[in-house]
Amino acid sequence: MKIFVIGSGNVATHLSGALLKAGHTIAGVCGRSFEHADELAKKLNARPFDSLAHIPTDADVYLISVSDDSIADVAAQMPDVKGIVAHTAGSVIMDVLKRFENHGVIYPMQSFTKNRQLNVGLVPFFVEGCTNDVADKLIMLAKTISTDVRLMTSKERKYLHLSAVFASNFVNGMFAEAEAVLKHCRLPFSVLQPLIEETVSKALEMGPVAAQTGPARRGDAGVMQTQQKMLDDENQRNLYSFASKRITERYRKP
Amino acid sequence: MKIFVIGSGNVATHLSGALLKAGHTIAGVCGRSFEHADELAKKLNARPFDSLAHIPTDADVYLISVSDDSIADVAAQMPDVKGIVAHTAGSVIMDVLKRFENHGVIYPMQSFTKNRQLNVGLVPFFVEGCTNDVADKLIMLAKTISTDVRLMTSKERKYLHLSAVFASNFVNGMFAEAEAVLKHCRLPFSVLQPLIEETVSKALEMGPVAAQTGPARRGDAGVMQTQQKMLDDENQRNLYSFASKRITERYRKP
Repeated sequence: MKIFVIGSGNVATHLSGALLKAGHTIAGVCGRSFEHADELAKKLNARPFDSLAHIPTDADVYLISVSDDSIADVAAQMPDVKGIVAHTAGSVIMDVLKRFENHGVIYPMQSFTKNRQLNVGLVPFFVEGCTNDVADKLIMLAKTISTDVRLMTSKERKYLHLSAVFASNFVNGMFAEAEAVLKHCRLPFSVLQPLIEETVSKALEMGPVAAQTGPARRGDAGVMQTQQKMLDDENQRNLYSFASKRITERYRKP
Repeated sequence: MKIFVIGSGNVATHLSGALLKAGHTIAGVCGRSFEHADELAKKLNARPFDSLAHIPTDADVYLISVSDDSIADVAAQMPDVKGIVAHTAGSVIMDVLKRFENHGVIYPMQSFTKNRQLNVGLVPFFVEGCTNDVADKLIMLAKTISTDVRLMTSKERKYLHLSAVFASNFVNGMFAEAEAVLKHCRLPFSVLQPLIEETVSKALEMGPVAAQTGPARRGDAGVMQTQQKMLDDENQRNLYSFASKRITERYRKP
């Protein structure tokens, strides 16, 4: 397929790279900064653009990989096109693109970073189309770069994105708390690596409900009180308190 | 060395197995349940006991691997011994064993599960002794089963244990929240595996403060408000709120 990429950030970079490798043609890259667009376009053998007004209108698919807040703006500024216009955001509904006859969503659930190698083939993709025909074409496209492609409505995708916030953003937030606490014993975050790796494999193998351990799971009020007092910030103590409460509640006998 | 093991749970099982493999002799295993003690003792070629009153007094090291709350009780019931008496708990001070002339701590920072294979050689051990001589002997012992052994005071170990609660127990708690939210789109927890694995490698390579992404990091109040409303439990909403607040605060420009 002939694909036009709008955006030159983390997601745009990884997706367009994988699409090129799968044999598709990247017709062009449009970014707010010509420099960034040009940098990505060079890697893809594509034409760079910094204005949506002049992009070609004959591509099969227009991929909008920009920040969530900017998708509506991009849609408003694009010329009328016959091809499928699809965004790649988890928390944005498909309807934001409804001015286009053929529109949809192709959401890769992963935390992308520009200069990190990543196997796109293992990333789960969630696809939605305004018609069955559009959905089928986007599924076909996604299947050329990933082995894990599913249909999902905008409503369900909102929950999927929320679960990713818990499993990725908030998990990383807990890592940052751990790192801060470790300063009291002058140890680097890396000392936690074996514990973190085992925690993750256990949760993935046994499921997180069975894998839970620790003072909150045991309902050990003494340890929890002592640990909360060791924290010096009020919101940090609140975080400790509600994280513990949610765990304790889960295992309370009825 | 000649080692006597008190406890037959997860930590006792993994440590005694590693010690035997390293060439030490396990003189005996004492557990509250004779059945459990006997089961572990059989694997270690050791004698089982279910009463502390009758254990041999000639071991070089007594390892107390019981629940945190029971360590003081065990210490009170043990006969007087010349060997080193050491517990393996992260959040318990060394002084709980002070009635013994030679006492200390040998804390392996890991989440142990009985029937899961685990490479003890990579587990970080934190050692404390009532004298330099005791500390040296416990370091030597730990080094026969792990490549990562450090000295640490009771006070510092309290913080180390707290950091492990954040990095392991609370991280697993966030996984459980994610799994619950995923029920709204009828997907299993395993769909998050690629995202979770990338989140962890990113945090370990870049450090969690640099690796943070998501609505809270961007300070995207709209998405955060919408997501909080999607949760149906008050404590869950509070957890979402404080996890987000802590992240947003961290990146607020001064």
